[in-house]
Amino acid sequence: MGIRHGHTRGLLLIRGGTVVTAQASFRVDVLCGDVGEILAVGPDLDIPSNGTVVDAGGLLVMPGGVDPQTGIGADEAGFARTVAALSGGTTTILDTMHPDGGRLDAAWRDWRHAARHAHVDVGLHMAMPDSGTVVMRHMDVLVAEHGVNAFHLSMADGLSDHDILELTSHAAACGALCMIEAQNAQAVAYLRAGLDHAGITGSEACLLSAPPAVEVEAVGRAIMLAGLSGGPVHVGPVSTTGATEVLAQTRLRGQRVEAHVLAPHLVVDEAVHDPEGDAVPDSCITLPPFRDGMHRRALWGGLASGNIGMVASGFRPAGGAGNGVADGLGQRMRVVWQHGVRAGILTAEEFVAATSQAAARAFNIYPRKGAIMPGADADIVLWDPDAQETCVSGLYAGITLGGRAVQVIRGGVTVWKDDMPCEGAGYGAYVPCPAFRPQLSERMRRAAHLSMRDGERHDRGP
Amino acid sequence: MGIRHGHTRGLLLIRGGTVVTAQASFRVDVLCGDVGEILAVGPDLDIPSNGTVVDAGGLLVMPGGVDPQTGIGADEAGFARTVAALSGGTTTILDTMHPDGGRLDAAWRDWRHAARHAHVDVGLHMAMPDSGTVVMRHMDVLVAEHGVNAFHLSMADGLSDHDILELTSHAAACGALCMIEAQNAQAVAYLRAGLDHAGITGSEACLLSAPPAVEVEAVGRAIMLAGLSGGPVHVGPVSTTGATEVLAQTRLRGQRVEAHVLAPHLVVDEAVHDPEGDAVPDSCITLPPFRDGMHRRALWGGLASGNIGMVASGFRPAGGAGNGVADGLGQRMRVVWQHGVRAGILTAEEFVAATSQAAARAFNIYPRKGAIMPGADADIVLWDPDAQETCVSGLYAGITLGGRAVQVIRGGVTVWKDDMPCEGAGYGAYVPCPAFRPQLSERMRRAAHLSMRDGERHDRGP
Amino acid sequence: MGIRHGHTRGLLLIRGGTVVTAQASFRVDVLCGDVGEILAVGPDLDIPSNGTVVDAGGLLVMPGGVDPQTGIGADEAGFARTVAALSGGTTTILDTMHPDGGRLDAAWRDWRHAARHAHVDVGLHMAMPDSGTVVMRHMDVLVAEHGVNAFHLSMADGLSDHDILELTSHAAACGALCMIEAQNAQAVAYLRAGLDHAGITGSEACLLSAPPAVEVEAVGRAIMLAGLSGGPVHVGPVSTTGATEVLAQTRLRGQRVEAHVLAPHLVVDEAVHDPEGDAVPDSCITLPPFRDGMHRRALWGGLASGNIGMVASGFRPAGGAGNGVADGLGQRMRVVWQHGVRAGILTAEEFVAATSQAAARAFNIYPRKGAIMPGADADIVLWDPDAQETCVSGLYAGITLGGRAVQVIRGGVTVWKDDMPCEGAGYGAYVPCPAFRPQLSERMRRAAHLSMRDGERHDRGP
Amino acid sequence: MGIRHGHTRGLLLIRGGTVVTAQASFRVDVLCGDVGEILAVGPDLDIPSNGTVVDAGGLLVMPGGVDPQTGIGADEAGFARTVAALSGGTTTILDTMHPDGGRLDAAWRDWRHAARHAHVDVGLHMAMPDSGTVVMRHMDVLVAEHGVNAFHLSMADGLSDHDILELTSHAAACGALCMIEAQNAQAVAYLRAGLDHAGITGSEACLLSAPPAVEVEAVGRAIMLAGLSGGPVHVGPVSTTGATEVLAQTRLRGQRVEAHVLAPHLVVDEAVHDPEGDAVPDSCITLPPFRDGMHRRALWGGLASGNIGMVASGFRPAGGAGNGVADGLGQRMRVVWQHGVRAGILTAEEFVAATSQAAARAFNIYPRKGAIMPGADADIVLWDPDAQETCVSGLYAGITLGGRAVQVIRGGVTVWKDDMPCEGAGYGAYVPCPAFRPQLSERMRRAAHLSMRDGERHDRGP
Repeated sequence: MGIRHGHTRGLLLIRGGTVVTAQASFRVDVLCGDVGEILAVGPDLDIPSNGTVVDAGGLLVMPGGVDPQTGIGADEAGFARTVAALSGGTTTILDTMHPDGGRLDAAWRDWRHAARHAHVDVGLHMAMPDSGTVVMRHMDVLVAEHGVNAFHLSMADGLSDHDILELTSHAAACGALCMIEAQNAQAVAYLRAGLDHAGITGSEACLLSAPPAVEVEAVGRAIMLAGLSGGPVHVGPVSTTGATEVLAQTRLRGQRVEAHVLAPHLVVDEAVHDPEGDAVPDSCITLPPFRDGMHRRALWGGLASGNIGMVASGFRPAGGAGNGVADGLGQRMRVVWQHGVRAGILTAEEFVAATSQAAARAFNIYPRKGAIMPGADADIVLWDPDAQETCVSGLYAGITLGGRAVQVIRGGVTVWKDDMPCEGAGYGAYVPCPAFRPQLSERMRRAAHLSMRDGERHDRGP
Repeated sequence: MGIRHGHTRGLLLIRGGTVVTAQASFRVDVLCGDVGEILAVGPDLDIPSNGTVVDAGGLLVMPGGVDPQTGIGADEAGFARTVAALSGGTTTILDTMHPDGGRLDAAWRDWRHAARHAHVDVGLHMAMPDSGTVVMRHMDVLVAEHGVNAFHLSMADGLSDHDILELTSHAAACGALCMIEAQNAQAVAYLRAGLDHAGITGSEACLLSAPPAVEVEAVGRAIMLAGLSGGPVHVGPVSTTGATEVLAQTRLRGQRVEAHVLAPHLVVDEAVHDPEGDAVPDSCITLPPFRDGMHRRALWGGLASGNIGMVASGFRPAGGAGNGVADGLGQRMRVVWQHGVRAGILTAEEFVAATSQAAARAFNIYPRKGAIMPGADADIVLWDPDAQETCVSGLYAGITLGGRAVQVIRGGVTVWKDDMPCEGAGYGAYVPCPAFRPQLSERMRRAAHLSMRDGERHDRGP
Repeated sequence: MGIRHGHTRGLLLIRGGTVVTAQASFRVDVLCGDVGEILAVGPDLDIPSNGTVVDAGGLLVMPGGVDPQTGIGADEAGFARTVAALSGGTTTILDTMHPDGGRLDAAWRDWRHAARHAHVDVGLHMAMPDSGTVVMRHMDVLVAEHGVNAFHLSMADGLSDHDILELTSHAAACGALCMIEAQNAQAVAYLRAGLDHAGITGSEACLLSAPPAVEVEAVGRAIMLAGLSGGPVHVGPVSTTGATEVLAQTRLRGQRVEAHVLAPHLVVDEAVHDPEGDAVPDSCITLPPFRDGMHRRALWGGLASGNIGMVASGFRPAGGAGNGVADGLGQRMRVVWQHGVRAGILTAEEFVAATSQAAARAFNIYPRKGAIMPGADADIVLWDPDAQETCVSGLYAGITLGGRAVQVIRGGVTVWKDDMPCEGAGYGAYVPCPAFRPQLSERMRRAAHLSMRDGERHDRGP
Repeated sequence: MGIRHGHTRGLLLIRGGTVVTAQASFRVDVLCGDVGEILAVGPDLDIPSNGTVVDAGGLLVMPGGVDPQTGIGADEAGFARTVAALSGGTTTILDTMHPDGGRLDAAWRDWRHAARHAHVDVGLHMAMPDSGTVVMRHMDVLVAEHGVNAFHLSMADGLSDHDILELTSHAAACGALCMIEAQNAQAVAYLRAGLDHAGITGSEACLLSAPPAVEVEAVGRAIMLAGLSGGPVHVGPVSTTGATEVLAQTRLRGQRVEAHVLAPHLVVDEAVHDPEGDAVPDSCITLPPFRDGMHRRALWGGLASGNIGMVASGFRPAGGAGNGVADGLGQRMRVVWQHGVRAGILTAEEFVAATSQAAARAFNIYPRKGAIMPGADADIVLWDPDAQETCVSGLYAGITLGGRAVQVIRGGVTVWKDDMPCEGAGYGAYVPCPAFRPQLSERMRRAAHLSMRDGERHDRGP
């Protein structure tokens, strides 16, 4: 990684398509340079002498997708499976490292090594085991030296409110943000114990042990704690009506919060947890569980309103650790296109935001990623807006997906075409996520900040 | 206790007043019998031959007040101070026992002994230290044998979500309810540590370490947890706009919840915490702190709408343990009369509900307490609706109180008159709070109850 | 009317039952006097020498139902049909007069005449055609001389915001309240015109022309306008989730508002409007239309939380004017018992509030109606809590009703027993609804009242 | 207009500054071409041979401001005053035409003529007098031929719900949107009549006759009606907490809505309406009135959360028709910079969105306006982020403004520099606002669309 392999690079002119970014659509051409960046965007660009011309007539030309949450593991074979991401138009993933025994440095080495086998560009987040002094020192190193600017806190795995306060505060101080997986762990455990006792296990127990309130409460709490510590916060995955309302209320009072949803939560019904139905896919053993139509409508409303900014696949190879779905790297964008854009809920521009640009902005790699403009990475997908197909198996069985990645360019190199990966396209690069501007973190300053006047800003909600 | 001392009892006819209950007002007379109960209520009752006639002309005749939360301690001198309650029209208090070292049985004995010196009738609640097997067995005994039907859970003192789930569930099973003091302990501790470090302590730190969100979050969480366990739940004291909104949303989706506010939170401004001001009264070192006018208006809206059902004094003798205000047993009802009824926010009937009937109903001692009807205890206050005076010292300094307890009758005996206690009026009785009908508590049943369909009822909020 | 006919009256002792009021349940007896009032309520009352004893063993003894909104018309035959109300435990109805050509006085005479044939006691409301000087003068007369204290304003029939401001203000000044039927008339007309054009008429058009937002908006507006004019306001019928939320928000900010729901909206699904289904009952041509399960759950939450205080039948004889359902006088209370009390949503006490006491309080006839206490009218229903039956036809076809009025007593006389009306039981009385205390109505005063400070109380919602 | 006058144009290279767009900030140069468009954006651009170099060192380089609502009138002198807009960094305004006697065509001619004297580029909106056939035919012409894509509907001036339904529907059909000034006209008139009677007029009456609820209700209603008709809708100016909440709720359920706030509402307190204070500026006679701090905080929260997308000046020359403020063309952006960006509420990127890009997008002139990219109009402001000054007179007296337009370029020509307009810079161009894609408007289709299923999407709120 770091050095790209594969195709002899040259100039590449994408001509005749409609460029769609998160802001607008244009009938312009795009010229990709030979060091992997976009050189020019404009109408009727000249064909370069030593270049290749790609005819994008009738197609949309969009930034390659950025998948903000995968959980592949420090596993070469797992990263090799990211070729599926290419098939669906995704050219960058942000994978979460899970340290064994609290060894953040070891996790970092292992993941970086495994990720050399990824077919997409890869950025890395780190899951935090606790808020001890040791791991906090590691945080500093990861941010300062290794391009890690996001730390994953799982309330579902038992991080306490104290941990969240300390870690969000420390993250702010070192220029990082925290992504909080917000589910009330003790409530889930309590309900699960009752279900176990009743002999209810498996996928049905996933549903019954995590009723919506268990998420809504935790989302509100996570946001409140980050508000107190002054740390930037991202929550997700969210799956409920109530969570979207908490997000909207939070923003209304001026606090910043980002959020993501997993693509399957947008379209898969809670009935998939039903033990009476067909064989339950393993992939359904997940937290949060899938929900009914009322919640799904609310999640789409969350996307349309911007309260949920981005869609992740939540991909985790079968047998992997943590929550996740063993499927979906390639379906993510097509789920959003079919049930968002074609259903009239999202515009094409909002599609680009939800599947690419918002994640790039949130993790500080915009406009390198998520944009089509001179200087940006030449990660581009040529999208057929009219294609559609219905899945026949897996988690999305019976669900129609829309759009198709006709050609995918990663770093100026065509990596997917004619429904198959391009030979010799090489592997993706590591994408360091630069630190944010550190924020005041001295507890004293925060305390002073909590003046009577400021108290008012926290008076409502969560 | 148990045997009343004092005045030779006889029949007592209260004539010419306006009886006000939580439902309606009537121009009727009230006849109190010689065993401490009300014998008759009606227009123009005959004067009993061996009775005393009290002329209530121009006065309101209301049920004696029931103060749902005091924290006197197992201290005879403390209970002796309840003569102040009489001065303000309160004839019953519900005091919270705090067990030392988890010894609930010892606490019970100590409190019962000390309470013999109370000038009002006394019911008892028990604060729970944890959710261990031993204390849960004690809960059963207290409910079944000792007339304790409410258990106090303090999130502020560190009870975990797990404890709340177990204790609310167990309380439901044994016919009791839980009163949850809802403040996020870890957040308060985090903020306090920062303030300590900055040298900010004392009353100002009370305010700064407990911003509104710290309460709102915890109120929502407490209610959510009780919703999952199926346990009846009461929260309080509440002090914020956000808490009233959570209460309203909870009720709208059909979950039951009771709540109380402390009288001083209705009228005392957060400025009292200001270290620049006059000497800070000790009484202000309390959680939750006092709030600004926006929150106070919301608390009154909570009372007017019934989302906050009752007003407590929160009395705790100076130097006592736990939170509380070293003042206010006698001011409680006058605060509500002046700033509620006279301000046009509450009706006189709602005043009776807020200061007497609602607490009696919540703790299952209605209509023995909180009512004026045949069979009810003859606890009656003759109230001058037009009196008012402005406090000159203490927590309520500068605040006007309204109404006046012209004469107070407890168990048919006049105990307060002419602005002083009546000699020989004896002590109050112990009021056992009967168990509620036990509710299904098997965890299995609850789990089964969490069907997909029921999930919807928890989908929004807190 | 005014003079009761029928049975020779005598003392009547109801013994051995459980008296249920809106406040509490008691094992007490009830003695009804020979002039139609309750004489005594207490344990083990003596059997009067000249009295009849009714054995209420195993039964609940509740106040006769008060139906707060019927639309019978000035029609003797229509009022004769109120025998159905008795069959379901209702002993009082409040019928709305609709003046022809704005002649309020004529309407009053006609209704009073027709109502002499009612089998229940009858109070009357007046629908207001506009806010002209003439009708406002009539309002004064009706309130002062005829016992009418409620005026019905139908936004659905085109009353403007100006009319609502003037009428609510005038009502307040003369001691009355306004009941507002809140639906956005212009929006309904707009949608209906489109449906007509598309050839969609009949019951389906009822549904499609009145989507929930059309009600939610109007409920919020009605309440806002009454808040500005200072007039007491009651809205209904309400049928939507959004309306319950508006009610809760209104109360939270301290504004008073009452509301009612029609019994069928609690249990009848919107599918009844489906033209593909079975023959559409005429009774379904109504505004608001029936809704889906989400809304129905919210209406039950509205009842449980007290935001919707009372349940009306909305009865209107087939062919009558205005909206309404040609069915349901007798089913009203059983709908609430089965789907409220037996479903665990409401307590028996809350049932009494929702079906009897709240309406009596709202229209100022409590405790004459809606109570079991000495001095109240002896309107009593002996209720078998365990009975249930499933309707086979009509609007409630397929819906199970619960409870049964075993014996119904109106004014001390048994009027229904053994599933049939009692011969010679005579007709019901007219129930004048006394004026409320008039409120300041000078526009100047209201204007002054709108100080900057008070502005804040209206800042949120609708 | 149409042909630009003024400076000999040439290439212009802006070097060394930080380009800030709504998406990101970059250290890049900007090359403006000689036909008024941006030619290139990138690092270290070459200095053109025939060009001028502008040193932007230490400055921000932002798109010229777009002011989405002014009310200048068909008055050359009025448009001449737009030189003030340049002084504050605004290079485009969108002015609302008010037709006399319903003559939309005449209004169009008059405004176009007068606008030739504007110092900024000018787009035009049309205020609609009613929903008659004639004016609707004019709408078509304005959209198709004259570059008007937005129609202003004033509920405050008495447009009915019917008008709003018809006009929003018709606007959708012809590719336009409606901007609704949402205030309940009848409520304001009712309150004003009372105030008049009490002798309260002038600025104080503005405040007292338009309490927050009068706006909140109307905003909710406008959005609901547009939701039914399917028309794109923009509301504003908004001034209340409640309106921001309605906007957030609307978006959460997936309905699109845009909104704007007037700059003075962000910083001017309601005390300015106080007759006891200093002379009341004429400029304060406006609807909506200024509000207290709670509302202002909510408006900032609305901007930070994107629920209020843009800030207008609301400029109207003193003596002009309609509501507006006789001040503020030049202060608009500095208000937002000082109290938004410097106060830590908004980022610099969000500032660009709020003052320029969002309006450009909303009125379909993005990226011609509101962007810094090749092909966009070369409307650029060089902004000193650190400047600040406190206003000494006028509406903003005593209020600090931040930032300063060091140099303003309009269409590639420097029009403001050294705190004064550049001689010979000529006048602005007319900016036609292209039609949006027309939407289905047949009422039949809309009716069909209102299926039971879709009903759910409207179930909550407004």
